[in-house]
Amino acid sequence: MTNAEKVAVLTEALPFMKQFFGKTVVIKYGGNAMINAALKQKVIEDIILMKFTGMKPVIVHGGGPEITAMLKQIGKQSEFVSGLRVTDTETMEIAEMVLVGKLNTEIVSLLNRNGVKAVGLNGKDANLTIAKKHLATVYEGTQVKEVDIGYVGDVIKINPEIISALLAQDYIPVIAPTGVGENGESFNINADYVAGEIAAALGAEKLLLLTDVEGIYRDYKDQSSFISTLTFAEATGMIAKGSIEGGMVPKVEACVRALAGGAGKTHIIDGRLPHSLLLEVFTNEGIGTEVVKTKGER
Amino acid sequence: MTNAEKVAVLTEALPFMKQFFGKTVVIKYGGNAMINAALKQKVIEDIILMKFTGMKPVIVHGGGPEITAMLKQIGKQSEFVSGLRVTDTETMEIAEMVLVGKLNTEIVSLLNRNGVKAVGLNGKDANLTIAKKHLATVYEGTQVKEVDIGYVGDVIKINPEIISALLAQDYIPVIAPTGVGENGESFNINADYVAGEIAAALGAEKLLLLTDVEGIYRDYKDQSSFISTLTFAEATGMIAKGSIEGGMVPKVEACVRALAGGAGKTHIIDGRLPHSLLLEVFTNEGIGTEVVKTKGER
Amino acid sequence: MTNAEKVAVLTEALPFMKQFFGKTVVIKYGGNAMINAALKQKVIEDIILMKFTGMKPVIVHGGGPEITAMLKQIGKQSEFVSGLRVTDTETMEIAEMVLVGKLNTEIVSLLNRNGVKAVGLNGKDANLTIAKKHLATVYEGTQVKEVDIGYVGDVIKINPEIISALLAQDYIPVIAPTGVGENGESFNINADYVAGEIAAALGAEKLLLLTDVEGIYRDYKDQSSFISTLTFAEATGMIAKGSIEGGMVPKVEACVRALAGGAGKTHIIDGRLPHSLLLEVFTNEGIGTEVVKTKGER
Amino acid sequence: MTNAEKVAVLTEALPFMKQFFGKTVVIKYGGNAMINAALKQKVIEDIILMKFTGMKPVIVHGGGPEITAMLKQIGKQSEFVSGLRVTDTETMEIAEMVLVGKLNTEIVSLLNRNGVKAVGLNGKDANLTIAKKHLATVYEGTQVKEVDIGYVGDVIKINPEIISALLAQDYIPVIAPTGVGENGESFNINADYVAGEIAAALGAEKLLLLTDVEGIYRDYKDQSSFISTLTFAEATGMIAKGSIEGGMVPKVEACVRALAGGAGKTHIIDGRLPHSLLLEVFTNEGIGTEVVKTKGER
Amino acid sequence: MTNAEKVAVLTEALPFMKQFFGKTVVIKYGGNAMINAALKQKVIEDIILMKFTGMKPVIVHGGGPEITAMLKQIGKQSEFVSGLRVTDTETMEIAEMVLVGKLNTEIVSLLNRNGVKAVGLNGKDANLTIAKKHLATVYEGTQVKEVDIGYVGDVIKINPEIISALLAQDYIPVIAPTGVGENGESFNINADYVAGEIAAALGAEKLLLLTDVEGIYRDYKDQSSFISTLTFAEATGMIAKGSIEGGMVPKVEACVRALAGGAGKTHIIDGRLPHSLLLEVFTNEGIGTEVVKTKGER
Amino acid sequence: MTNAEKVAVLTEALPFMKQFFGKTVVIKYGGNAMINAALKQKVIEDIILMKFTGMKPVIVHGGGPEITAMLKQIGKQSEFVSGLRVTDTETMEIAEMVLVGKLNTEIVSLLNRNGVKAVGLNGKDANLTIAKKHLATVYEGTQVKEVDIGYVGDVIKINPEIISALLAQDYIPVIAPTGVGENGESFNINADYVAGEIAAALGAEKLLLLTDVEGIYRDYKDQSSFISTLTFAEATGMIAKGSIEGGMVPKVEACVRALAGGAGKTHIIDGRLPHSLLLEVFTNEGIGTEVVKTKGER
Repeated sequence: MTNAEKVAVLTEALPFMKQFFGKTVVIKYGGNAMINAALKQKVIEDIILMKFTGMKPVIVHGGGPEITAMLKQIGKQSEFVSGLRVTDTETMEIAEMVLVGKLNTEIVSLLNRNGVKAVGLNGKDANLTIAKKHLATVYEGTQVKEVDIGYVGDVIKINPEIISALLAQDYIPVIAPTGVGENGESFNINADYVAGEIAAALGAEKLLLLTDVEGIYRDYKDQSSFISTLTFAEATGMIAKGSIEGGMVPKVEACVRALAGGAGKTHIIDGRLPHSLLLEVFTNEGIGTEVVKTKGER
Repeated sequence: MTNAEKVAVLTEALPFMKQFFGKTVVIKYGGNAMINAALKQKVIEDIILMKFTGMKPVIVHGGGPEITAMLKQIGKQSEFVSGLRVTDTETMEIAEMVLVGKLNTEIVSLLNRNGVKAVGLNGKDANLTIAKKHLATVYEGTQVKEVDIGYVGDVIKINPEIISALLAQDYIPVIAPTGVGENGESFNINADYVAGEIAAALGAEKLLLLTDVEGIYRDYKDQSSFISTLTFAEATGMIAKGSIEGGMVPKVEACVRALAGGAGKTHIIDGRLPHSLLLEVFTNEGIGTEVVKTKGER
Repeated sequence: MTNAEKVAVLTEALPFMKQFFGKTVVIKYGGNAMINAALKQKVIEDIILMKFTGMKPVIVHGGGPEITAMLKQIGKQSEFVSGLRVTDTETMEIAEMVLVGKLNTEIVSLLNRNGVKAVGLNGKDANLTIAKKHLATVYEGTQVKEVDIGYVGDVIKINPEIISALLAQDYIPVIAPTGVGENGESFNINADYVAGEIAAALGAEKLLLLTDVEGIYRDYKDQSSFISTLTFAEATGMIAKGSIEGGMVPKVEACVRALAGGAGKTHIIDGRLPHSLLLEVFTNEGIGTEVVKTKGER
Repeated sequence: MTNAEKVAVLTEALPFMKQFFGKTVVIKYGGNAMINAALKQKVIEDIILMKFTGMKPVIVHGGGPEITAMLKQIGKQSEFVSGLRVTDTETMEIAEMVLVGKLNTEIVSLLNRNGVKAVGLNGKDANLTIAKKHLATVYEGTQVKEVDIGYVGDVIKINPEIISALLAQDYIPVIAPTGVGENGESFNINADYVAGEIAAALGAEKLLLLTDVEGIYRDYKDQSSFISTLTFAEATGMIAKGSIEGGMVPKVEACVRALAGGAGKTHIIDGRLPHSLLLEVFTNEGIGTEVVKTKGER
Repeated sequence: MTNAEKVAVLTEALPFMKQFFGKTVVIKYGGNAMINAALKQKVIEDIILMKFTGMKPVIVHGGGPEITAMLKQIGKQSEFVSGLRVTDTETMEIAEMVLVGKLNTEIVSLLNRNGVKAVGLNGKDANLTIAKKHLATVYEGTQVKEVDIGYVGDVIKINPEIISALLAQDYIPVIAPTGVGENGESFNINADYVAGEIAAALGAEKLLLLTDVEGIYRDYKDQSSFISTLTFAEATGMIAKGSIEGGMVPKVEACVRALAGGAGKTHIIDGRLPHSLLLEVFTNEGIGTEVVKTKGER
Repeated sequence: MTNAEKVAVLTEALPFMKQFFGKTVVIKYGGNAMINAALKQKVIEDIILMKFTGMKPVIVHGGGPEITAMLKQIGKQSEFVSGLRVTDTETMEIAEMVLVGKLNTEIVSLLNRNGVKAVGLNGKDANLTIAKKHLATVYEGTQVKEVDIGYVGDVIKINPEIISALLAQDYIPVIAPTGVGENGESFNINADYVAGEIAAALGAEKLLLLTDVEGIYRDYKDQSSFISTLTFAEATGMIAKGSIEGGMVPKVEACVRALAGGAGKTHIIDGRLPHSLLLEVFTNEGIGTEVVKTKGER
C-alpha cells in the first residue's frame, strides 16, 4: 500500500476517534466470531484498538454452542421449547460453569495477552444482573400458553456500579450472561438482552451486536430488502407485527431496549466478516443495520 | 444469656476490633467448611462480621473434591502423583469451570445475599496470578525425579492491583486458585499457596487458613504435642526436617511465604468447628496454630 | 462462657453493625453514668466499641452537679427558678469553666487513653451553638410569668461544619453544652436540648440519651405503665398534655426535636445500668424507651 | 492622611504579604496584651489581618494572672518555687478550668465575632501536648536540688495532626498551654515553651512571642544594650552563661527550640505597644528582638 | 509616618481584605495607566497586592494607541468611522500582533518579574472570545445606517473554562481583547466590552475599569455633577437617553453588561491617579464612579 | 480501497497507539509545513489524530521567514552573522509580535477549529523559557571571535509547570520560541533548541522535528549515505567533528539535548511530505532519521 493510502485510512478514521473518545461502547460478542479462532483473534484486536483510541469497551459474550457441547459430553440431551433451552438445575450448573469458568476466562485471558487489563464479571458479581424466571410462550393450535422451562431468566435490574468502578480504573469488563434470582438461584439469560440492558444502564454511546447474518431485511426472504438504518419506531413496529425473523428478534429487542434506556446508537453487524467491529466503528461505510432514534424520537 | 454475659463477649472482642480496623485479612476457605452447608453459612456470617467491624477480608477458596466429582460425572478418573492431580488439558478445563464457574460464583452469591458486595476473581482477571508448571517430586527407591503432571502450577507473581482497586471501593474479592501461564494456558494451583502469596503481595495483617484438623503437632502422631504458636524459624525448620505431616506442608509453607513477604500473623485453624474464624479473630483464646515472626525475626 | 455462647452474642450483634456502619450516632452523656467512676469507664468502652464497629459517635455531655459543687466551693449558693439555675455572670463563668475546662477535657482524655482520637468542642468553637436567653416560666396562682434568670440559653442555630470536619478526619467530637449569644456572651444550655439539636443538624441515625431512670411511663406514678416505643405523635401529645414527668420533659422534647429535624431514631435509656449503650445498640432486646416516627409520620 | 501616605503604607506591607502568603505563623499571646481590653481588641484585629492576607495563624495563650486570681477567689494561696507555681491536684484543676474554660473560650469567641472561624484546643485534644512532670531547680547554698512541685509539666511530644487538620479547613486554632501525662493527668506548662514546641512541630515560618518588655538586652541592666537580632548561637550562648534576665529565659529558650525544630524566624516583641504584631509583620522597621539562624547555622 | 498612622491604614484596609478574599476581580487595564511607565509600575504593584491579599485578579488590557503607532510605522493611515477604526485584513493582522505579541507579553512579563505567575491569553486561546462582525452606526442627516468597517467585533460568547483553570492553579490571566469568528477570522474588540463580558461569564465580585477621567458626570459639561454611585437602572437610563459622553459609553455599557450577567459591583476609576486600584479597593473613600445593582435590582 | 486494506492500515497502527497512549510528544513545527497551506492543514490533522489516539502533543513552532517578511514590510533589512539574525531592539519587537501575535494565534486557531482545545504560550508566560544572550561565533582567518548580535538567546531554564497544568486539563499547548532574560528583555531563540529543551524538561516520549530535508546524511554531499538511525554517541561525535551540514546542526543538537534530558526517542523528519507526522508515528516504516540512545547509552 502507498503512504497516501495509509494516510487516507487513518484520516478517514479520525472523525470517529474524535466522536468516541472517552465514550462507553458495549459489544455483544457471540456467534461464529466466538467460535472461529481466526475471527476471534480479530475481534480481540478490534477491541484493543477501540481501547487505545480512547473508548471504554464493555464486552458481553454468549455461549450457547459450548453449553450444548458440554451437556453432550456429560451425556445430557439439550431440549428446546420455542427456541429456548429447557434448563433444569443440572443444566444450569453446566451452563454457568461453561459461561463463567470457560468462555469468560478465555476471553479475559486473550485480551490481557494483547496488552490491556480485562476483568471477568458475571451476573452474581456485586449483584450485577438481577433476574427472574422467563416463561416460554408456546402456541398450541389457537391457544397460547406460558410454560416453565426452568432457569431461563429475564433481566429485572442491572446494578452497573461494578462496571463503572472497573472502567474508571481502566479495566475492560467482560461479562457472562448469567443472572441471579431473589433466592440466589442462577439464571441463563440471552446475551443479547443482557447487552441491551447493560448499554441502557450505562447510557452507552454505542451498542454493537455481532451476529452471523449481514443485518436486518425488511422481508427476510428477500435479499434486496436489506435495511441500513432502522428508526426506533420502525423497529418497535416490526417486532409488534412479527415481521422480524425469529433469531433476530432478541437482537432488535436488545437495540430497542438500549435506545429506550438512553444509549446512543445500536448496530447489528455481521461477525463473520473479519474485523467487522473495526470497519463499523472507524470507517465511513458502516456495515450491517443500525437501529437509532431519529431526532424526533429522542 | 444475661446482659452481663453479652457485654462480656462484646468487650472481649473490642481490642481485636481496634487492632484490625481497616486492615486486610486473607482467608483461605476450603475443606469441610466449604462442603457442609451449615458450616458454610457460618463462615459467610463470620466474614460479614469481619467486614462490618471494619476489616477488609479477601477470600481465596479451594475446590478439590468438587473437581473430582465433576470429573467422575464426565467419566474421567482422577490420577494422583505424590498427592497432586495429574492434570491434562481436559482435566484443567473441568477444574477451571468448577472453580471459577461453580464454586466461586456460589460463594460470591452467598456473600451478596448477606448484605455485602462481593466480586469473584480468578488468576486470569487482570493477570492476577501468573503461574508456571509445577513438577511433581517422585521418590523411586533412592532416586528423586521431577515428573511433568500437566497443568499443575506454581505462583510466579501476584499482580494485586485489581484486589486493591476492589477493596478501595468496598468490595470483598473472592479468588479462585487458578493461574495463567506465559502462553495464556490455565493452571490449577493449591489454594493454600495462592492465599499465602496474596497475603504477601497485599502485606495483609492476617492470613487465616481453614483446615480439617485442629492445628499443627510437633509430632503429628502424638495428640499431646499440639503447638499453639510456631515461630518463623521453627516453621522453616520443621519443613526442612520433614517433620510436618504431608497435608499440612502446603499450609505451613503458605504461612512462611506470607510472613516472608510482609504479612502480619498467620493462623492454621480448624474449619470443622462452627464459627472458628470468628472465635479466632474476636476472642482471647484463639484456636488452632499460629505461625508468627518473633520480634527478632522481623 | 462457651464458644457457642460467645458466637451467639457476636452474631446477634451483626445486624446492628451492618445497620449502623458509617452512620452518625449522637450520645447525650450525663447523670450517674458521668459521676460513678465504674459506669464512666463502661460508657467510654461502649463508645469505643461503637467507633470500631464503624459508627461515628458524637458526644454531648452535661454537668449540673459539678457546677453546683464548684459554686459551693467558692461560697456561692445555687438558686433555682422552675428547676432552672439562676445564672448571673459569675455563675456562668464558673459553669463554663467546669463544663469546658474540667468535664469536657476529662471525657476527651478518657477516650484518647482508650485508643481513639477525641477532640473537645463547646458552643463557641467555630460558632457551633448560637443561643439566646431562655426565660423561665413561673406560675403564680393563676398567672403565668416569664422571668429573666440570666445566662440560661435556648439553641437558635447549630453550625455543624466543625463537627463534620472532625468526623471526616476520624475524630470523636465531645461537646460541652454552652452557647454563644449575639454579643459574644456565654449561655448555659440543657445538654439534652443541645444533643437533640445537634442530632437534627447532623441528620444523625440515632440519638441516645443516658438518664437516671428506666425510661418513660405512660403514668409516671404507675411502674406497670412503662413504654417501650413512643411514636412522634404520642410524644408530642404527651408533652402538650403535661403527662410527662418534669425531669423527662427536656429529654422527650430533645427526641421530638431530633426527629423533626431528620434524625433516625431516638432512645431514652437507663445510664445506671452498666453498658446500657452497648446493650441498646448491639442486642435484640433494646432497653429504655425509644421515640420514633412511624412510617406515616416520616 | 493623604492618599499617597496610605499607598505608601500598603506598598510597604506588600513584600511581607508575598513572603508569608500561605505560611504558618505561631503567636504566643500573653502578658498585658491579654489583660488590657483595648490591647486585646488590637491583637485580635492583627490576627484577623494576618489571616486575610493569606497567613495561617496559630495562637497559643498563657494565663498565669487569671489562675492566681481564681485561686484567690476560692481562698487558695499560690506558692512559687524558683518562679514556678506549686501545683497540687486542686490547683491544677483550677488552672485547667481557667485556661481552657475561661481564657481559651474567650479568645475563640472574640476571633469568631470578627469574621473568622476559630476553634479552641488544649493539650488533651487528640493528645496534642504530651507532657511529663517538670522538677524545679532549687539552689540551697552550694547545693542544687530538683524539687517536685506537682503538676507543672514539660512538653515531651506535640501531635500536630489536629492543628494541621483545622488549618487545612481554614480554622484558626487557639491553644491552651496544658498537657496530658501518660496516666491521663493534666499538666500546666509555660505557654512560651508550648508555643516554641508547636512552632517546631509545624515547621512554622514565624514564631511571635508577645511580652511585656521591649525585647532582649545584652546586659539587662543597661538600656542601651538592646539587641535587634540575636543569632541561634548567641542565644544559646547567652542562656548557657546565664546572661539573660530570668523572665526572658523561657522566651529565648522557646525561640531556640522552635529554630532547632525547623521554624523560620522567631521574634520577641513588646505586647504593650498597640498593634505590635501588625507592625512587626507588615512594616520594614520590625520591633523587639528577633532570634534567627544565620545562613551558616541552617 | 508614625506607627499609629501605619496601623490606621492597614486596619482601614482589613474589612476590604475580608470581603474580597478568594474572590475574582476583573481589571480593565488601559489608557494612560498603560502608557506612562511610572503609572504602569504602580498598576502592576496594585495587582500584586490584590493577589497577595487573596484575590484572584483577571486582567483585560486595551491597546489602541500602540496599534495606531505601529500602523503609522508601516505607513498605514488609521481611518475611523463613528469612533471605530476601519479594520481591513492588514490592519487586523497588525492589531493582533501589537495586542498579543507586544502589549500582552509585556504585561505578563512585568507581573512575573514582581513575584507572581501570569499567563497571557487572547480570544483564540481555547476559543475564549467568540465574536462576530460589529457594524458601525452612522448618522447621515436623519438617516441611520449600519456600515461594515471590517474586523471590528462584538462578543458573542465567552468560554471561560481556560480562565478558571488558570485561576485554580494560582496563575493571573492577562487577556488581549481579540476575538475569533466562526471561520477562524480575527476580530479587534473594545477592551471594555471584553472585560464586561468576562466579568459576567466569571460572575466576578468586582469589575474595575481604568479610564483617563475621574468618573461619570450627570451632565458631562458640569464638573459639579459628578456621580459617586449609579444604580443599574440609572445607568441603563442614561445610556438610553444618550446623556453619557461618547468615550464613556462603552465603559458604562460594560458595567451594565457585567452586572446583568451576575458580577457584584463595577467601578469606573481614574487610572491617571497613581495607585488608583489600590485606593479604590483598600480604602474607605473609594474613587471614581461605581455602577451597582440596588437591593431591589438584584 | 478494500476493507481488508483499511483493516491492514489500522491494525498496523495499533502497536503505536498502545505505545504512545497517555504519552507526551513534542513536535517542532516549522519550515515548508508551516508555509504551504495544504501541508499546514495536514500537520494540524496529524496532531488532532495524535490527540485522539490518547497522546499529549506539545507544539513548538518557528517563524523565521515571516519575521523577515514583516521586517521588510517596515523597511528594515535583515542582517545575518554566522546564519543568525542580528537582532536589535526593534527587530526583537517585530519578531515577538510576529511569533506570538501572528503565527502562534494562527496555529492555535487552526487547531481549535478542528475540534481540540489549544492554548498559545510564549517564553514569558509563567516564565516558561528563561534565556540569556547568545554570542555568535565568527571565524576570521584562523581566529575565532564571539560577537554580540543582540537579542538572540540561549535557553537557560524551562519552567514546564504551565505546560503540565494545561496538559492535565486536556489542552494542547502551542509554544512560540521566545525567551525572557533576567531583566525582562525578550529573546528570539531557535525553535529547534526550544523544542529540544522542552522535550527534556517534560521527559517527553518523543521529539519530532519537522524539517525541509529527508533526514541526515553521513556525508551530506552523498545521497546514498542517508542515515535511518543515529545513536546518541554517533550524533554527539558528528557534531564534534563538524560532519553535520550547517542547517541540520541545531536539529541534531536539539535531539541530543532532549535525549540527554530524559526524552525517549527523537526524530528528524521531512515536513515537505504530506502527513509525515502521521506516517512516522503510526506506520512501521518510519521516515527520516531517528536519533536514539542505545541500551548501553541509557
